[in-house]
This record gives sequence, structure tokens and C-alpha cells, in this order.
Amino acid sequence: MKEPPFSLRDATVAIVGLGLMGGSLAMALHAQNACRKILGVTRNPATRQAALSGAIVDAASADLTLAAEADVIILATPVRTILEQLPPIGAIAREGTIIMDLGSTKLETTRAMEGLPAHVEPIGGHPMCGKETFGFDAADADLYRNAVFVLTPLARTSTSTLAFAGSLAGTLGARPVVLDPARHDKIVAAISHLPFALAATLMRTADELARADDLLYVLAASGFRDTSRLAAGDTTMMLDILLTNHENVAAALRVYAHHLDELAELIDRQDETTLRAILQDAAMKRRKLF
Amino acid sequence: MKEPPFSLRDATVAIVGLGLMGGSLAMALHAQNACRKILGVTRNPATRQAALSGAIVDAASADLTLAAEADVIILATPVRTILEQLPPIGAIAREGTIIMDLGSTKLETTRAMEGLPAHVEPIGGHPMCGKETFGFDAADADLYRNAVFVLTPLARTSTSTLAFAGSLAGTLGARPVVLDPARHDKIVAAISHLPFALAATLMRTADELARADDLLYVLAASGFRDTSRLAAGDTTMMLDILLTNHENVAAALRVYAHHLDELAELIDRQDETTLRAILQDAAMKRRKLF
Repeated sequence: MKEPPFSLRDATVAIVGLGLMGGSLAMALHAQNACRKILGVTRNPATRQAALSGAIVDAASADLTLAAEADVIILATPVRTILEQLPPIGAIAREGTIIMDLGSTKLETTRAMEGLPAHVEPIGGHPMCGKETFGFDAADADLYRNAVFVLTPLARTSTSTLAFAGSLAGTLGARPVVLDPARHDKIVAAISHLPFALAATLMRTADELARADDLLYVLAASGFRDTSRLAAGDTTMMLDILLTNHENVAAALRVYAHHLDELAELIDRQDETTLRAILQDAAMKRRKLF
Repeated sequence: MKEPPFSLRDATVAIVGLGLMGGSLAMALHAQNACRKILGVTRNPATRQAALSGAIVDAASADLTLAAEADVIILATPVRTILEQLPPIGAIAREGTIIMDLGSTKLETTRAMEGLPAHVEPIGGHPMCGKETFGFDAADADLYRNAVFVLTPLARTSTSTLAFAGSLAGTLGARPVVLDPARHDKIVAAISHLPFALAATLMRTADELARADDLLYVLAASGFRDTSRLAAGDTTMMLDILLTNHENVAAALRVYAHHLDELAELIDRQDETTLRAILQDAAMKRRKLF
């Protein structure tokens, strides 16, 4: 067994999925010459070609078995693909291999990691960064910079593996935050999945109203642009998120719908005093936050 | 009577309200040396001082009567302040003076303009630009650049005044779009006021959930930042908008709440096929738009 702790510098890192998250990770590691070798696994032939010709990866394949020789395997695919890939990855990984996923929900993936063979070192991860664009073309070596990088260790995760994951975050310019997977999923339902649901619903609503007036989008400015931005994201990734975190998302949506109902009623009643108090409070909290 | 058409270049322009919109307008006119003289009316002594010391305005006063000598008076205050200021402005304006407001809702302001004396030339305006920051400190000479500048002429508005308003938009780098006030208010309810209401409600919801978990905001990234951005805007301005456009905003909120309910139900039921279709459609429409 290759004894952890080993350093990122000496490691062969396999990245499964070279979309926005995986591609950006490969670019960041490559740009800093941070590891010995980068292997890329993706089904997309154009991405393999682009990653190889840009020398972002040292080898690329459509086949997961390329990852067999890695010291670290990072799954950067949508959550439900990660759930499918974990068993075959566990079957090919060598003793001591660190297996990390970057899935946007952590309870199901971390539970699935419990089923990995005893000789591998699993840990969950979720870098809190993203864009509404996706795919290797949207990847960016600086994507992780200044982001919070959530780590969800399992009971069996060794301290060395946790330290290694922390060093990976540090190399990317990100800040590790260790969290229980259930707590992570509840938090991101509120600050990530709820905003996505709101943006998609705004787009749907605007589209319905635009059918009645073709000038509607002509007047759309930066406010509409920013509030609807998340709606443009990768549908498969977001669908996997909503389905693997459906209870927390539904709960956040219920709290939201309650507040929205109340606001609509205050507007209907033209209750200026209460409206002012609510909007002032929201404004002050938002200004403090960013 | 000073006969329109007169050119912006020869005009004395009074701007009432030197916040984000009025301040940016003054800065843009000043930077381009676009008019003969700029007069600024604001109650805020620090803003008067800043505008004078930066030579953004040629004269400044807390008193509306400064605007009496102007050829063009532009009201850049919140909507309900505009409604209060129109009668005294009408009383002091000289014959032929163009009176334009930049209010974010247009039905009430345009109706109020009908009551102005016959010897002045009223026209409504609404530049579709803004920021979540506000006040003279946030003003920016490029704010209007590439924005749509809605113009809502009254039945009595002369063609010369409309052309003059178009030239003002052009000078600012904005694109004039002539609209009926009622149609304007219905459109902006959907693409501006609804997004604001959603952002404020998101902030309120997140704040409720943050009380249960102090790490919630630590994980908030660019998705939350952008979706909640509008919540930080000027409360008085937004309150005036919601109250003077409450029927359209309430109608848009009802359509939105219906779609949100439906989405929550699909997530609860884990109806993957319908969810995928809805999210894919929203994503495609958002990507086409920006």
C-alpha cells in the first residue's frame, strides 16, 4: 500500500468528467504544475481532443479504467452519474487511492462511498463555485479561487486523507470547510438550489408574460439578467441536484412560498408600513453580506 | 415662448434628485459637455457639495425654484416624490419648458403630467438601467450607455419634444423605445419589479434559515449573490414602485407563485421527466436571451 500522506506534487490525479468543474480543476493543477500527472476521463471526444492538445491532461480516455493507475481519483460528474461511477471506480482503484467526488449534494454520494472497498480512501467534496455556462469550453483555471471548498469526510476517512483534501483546496486557492453531509445538503438547498429554482421559475413566468407582449424582453435589463442567471445552467446537473436533495429543496421552497405569499398580500393591501420594514430589513441584510 | 425644437447643446438642464439616476445623468451630460448649463436640485447638502466641487453641476440648491430658469427639467426622484414635485415644478416652469420624469413606473406619473399647465411640454421617461447601489456616490457617467430608454409621451406632447427626448437618450448612449405608460408598467412588473420581489423574499428566506445554521452564509457563492442582488436596492424607490404599480406586480406574483407551486410539487413527486422538460425549456430560453 502506498502510504498516505503522499503529496499532491508526487500524485497522479485522475479527473472523471472534464466539464466546468473537472475541466477547471485540471486547468488549475496544470497551470501550477501542481501534480505529477493528470489523467482525464470523459466520453466527449472533442473534450478529450481539446484537453490533450492544450496539454491540460497527460492522457485522456472515455474509459474509467484509465483512472486505475491514479493516486487520487476525483469524480466531477453530475451527482447521479457519480452514484453510478463509484462502484466501478472502487473496483479498479489501487490500495490507498484517495477517491473524492465534487457532487453538488453530499448525503447520497457520501453514503454511496461507504460501500467502497476498505482499501481505498474516500472523502466527499463540494467546491462552492460555478457559472451558468458549462462544459470544458467554459472551464477556467481560476474558478476555484477564493471559493469555499466543502469537505465531507466519512467516519472511515483518515486524517491524512482529510489533510490531503485540504491541501488540494489550498492549491486551488479555495478555503476548506469541513461539514456533515446532511448539514451541507440542508444549507445548499437554501443558498444554491432554491436560487436556481427561483431563477428557472422567473424565466418560465417571464416567458408566459412575454407571449402577451413581444416588447417584454426588450426592456429586460441587468436586474432581470442577474436574477434569472442560474436558469441557464446545466439541466442534467441541476436535475440530479433537485432529485438527490428533494426533501431539503421542497422544505426551502415552502418557507419561500410562505414569505412570497405574505409579500403579495402586503402589496395587494398596500400596507406601506409593513412593506417598508420587510424590504428595509432584506436590504440591510443583503448589504451586510456582500 | 422659446420655440422648440431647441438643441440640447444650447439648453439649461435642471436635474431634480442627484441620486444614482440623476447623478449619473448629470455626470454624463457634464462629461460630454452636452448642454449649456446643468442645475442640480437636491436636499442632501453633501451631494450638493460633491456635485459642485466636481463641477458636475453649475449651480445647486435644495430649492426647486432653481429649476425655474431651465429649458429642460428632469425629475430623477422616487415615483411618489415625482408626483409631489410635479405641481410646484409646473408652477415655476417657463413657457415651452420640457418637463421629463425618470420614474420607474409611468402610469401615475404620466397621468399627473396631464395636470401640468398648458404652456409646458411634459414627457415621461424611464431609462432601463440601475444598480443595487444608489445615491450620488454610486453615480456613473456610463450608467445609461446601451440601456433602453423608455419614453412615454402624453397626447399633448409635441413631436419636437419627443425628438428632443430621443436626442437626450442618444447623447447618453441609450436607445429610445416609445411606449404607452400602461403597457410599460405591465412589462416592468414582470421583468423588473417581480425580480426585485423575488430577491427580497430570497433574502428573507435565507435569513430565516440562517438562524438555524450559522454556516449558511459562509457557503453562499455567486449564485446566491446574483439572485439576491436586487434586494440591496434603495428601499424608498422600490416601495414607491410597488405601491404605484401594485396591480401589475400582484398579477405577476400570482403567475409566478403558480409556477413555483407546480415546480415544488414536481420536486416532491420526483417527476423527473416533467422536471427535465421544464428546466430544459427555461435554460434554453435564458441562453437565447443573454
